[in-house]
Amino acid sequence: MERISTETVYEGKIAAVRVDVFRHPDGEEAEREIVAHPGAVGIVAHDDEKIFLVRQPREAVAEPDLLELPAGKLDVEGESRLDCAKRELAEEIGLEARDWRELKRFYTTPGFADEEVTIFEATGLAELPDHRPDPAERIEIVRWPLADLDGAIAACHDSKSLIGLLLLRVEG
Amino acid sequence: MERISTETVYEGKIAAVRVDVFRHPDGEEAEREIVAHPGAVGIVAHDDEKIFLVRQPREAVAEPDLLELPAGKLDVEGESRLDCAKRELAEEIGLEARDWRELKRFYTTPGFADEEVTIFEATGLAELPDHRPDPAERIEIVRWPLADLDGAIAACHDSKSLIGLLLLRVEG
Repeated sequence: MERISTETVYEGKIAAVRVDVFRHPDGEEAEREIVAHPGAVGIVAHDDEKIFLVRQPREAVAEPDLLELPAGKLDVEGESRLDCAKRELAEEIGLEARDWRELKRFYTTPGFADEEVTIFEATGLAELPDHRPDPAERIEIVRWPLADLDGAIAACHDSKSLIGLLLLRVEG
Repeated sequence: MERISTETVYEGKIAAVRVDVFRHPDGEEAEREIVAHPGAVGIVAHDDEKIFLVRQPREAVAEPDLLELPAGKLDVEGESRLDCAKRELAEEIGLEARDWRELKRFYTTPGFADEEVTIFEATGLAELPDHRPDPAERIEIVRWPLADLDGAIAACHDSKSLIGLLLLRVEG
């Protein structure tokens, strides 16, 4: 399968929309509308007693707040996925981690978007001394008991958080 | 939080993009770019020996093929999520199921899209007599051994498939 043409039909702040035409090996051509996204990271940060989650407004889905893993977009030019995860854990939760492990990479919705999310596990946690959360982000830190991981899975409703928590549940 | 304005800035075949402005309870306003999507269903269809997956091209993510749960968009006016899941299981796999159970609803990527996916478990499977797959869909049916559920989880790279298989792993 090869891409034989691409046209940007909308360019916004977060997402752009392209219409690409592909040719399959048998010669048939297919036109696809693709939302282009830089990708993101999500972080399963925990010690033996608790896992660090965030509660924040998500205007796109019209619920007042969602409970989620700390996460962020890969929107800094040249920054690696791991460095992005370290920065987001520091900014959102005020923590640094000694040990980092990549748990999974996945596409959020490969039928129409190219967004790929990388989930990291972060352990060996230590508090950063000067953490001042950005009030504009409206993020509430939630320390969820690790013994009630199933409760966190039931309370989360977005793909990266469910995949991260379920992998911890299966592998942990 | 209330929506105080909405403007459609792009209208495509699958996705539309809106720019909405929200007002938080403290009076602050936030502009959000939102990809609007009708939503989708995914189906964890299995018997005691195997789970039914599909392998198909996903042009948006530039990999030759992805291994996934059977799934489909809620693109038929007035059709319920469950009826959509029954139709997709029949069309993609040629099966009907006696027992249906909703496992989870989740947002694929709530930072910028409103797409919600409902995952169903389908059991009590029976083959439909006249199944003729649509060649235009380029879908290969994969019968994966249930004893190797961890292998399927490792081989899948999209959110609905991972969440469905991980929930089966945890609850099954």
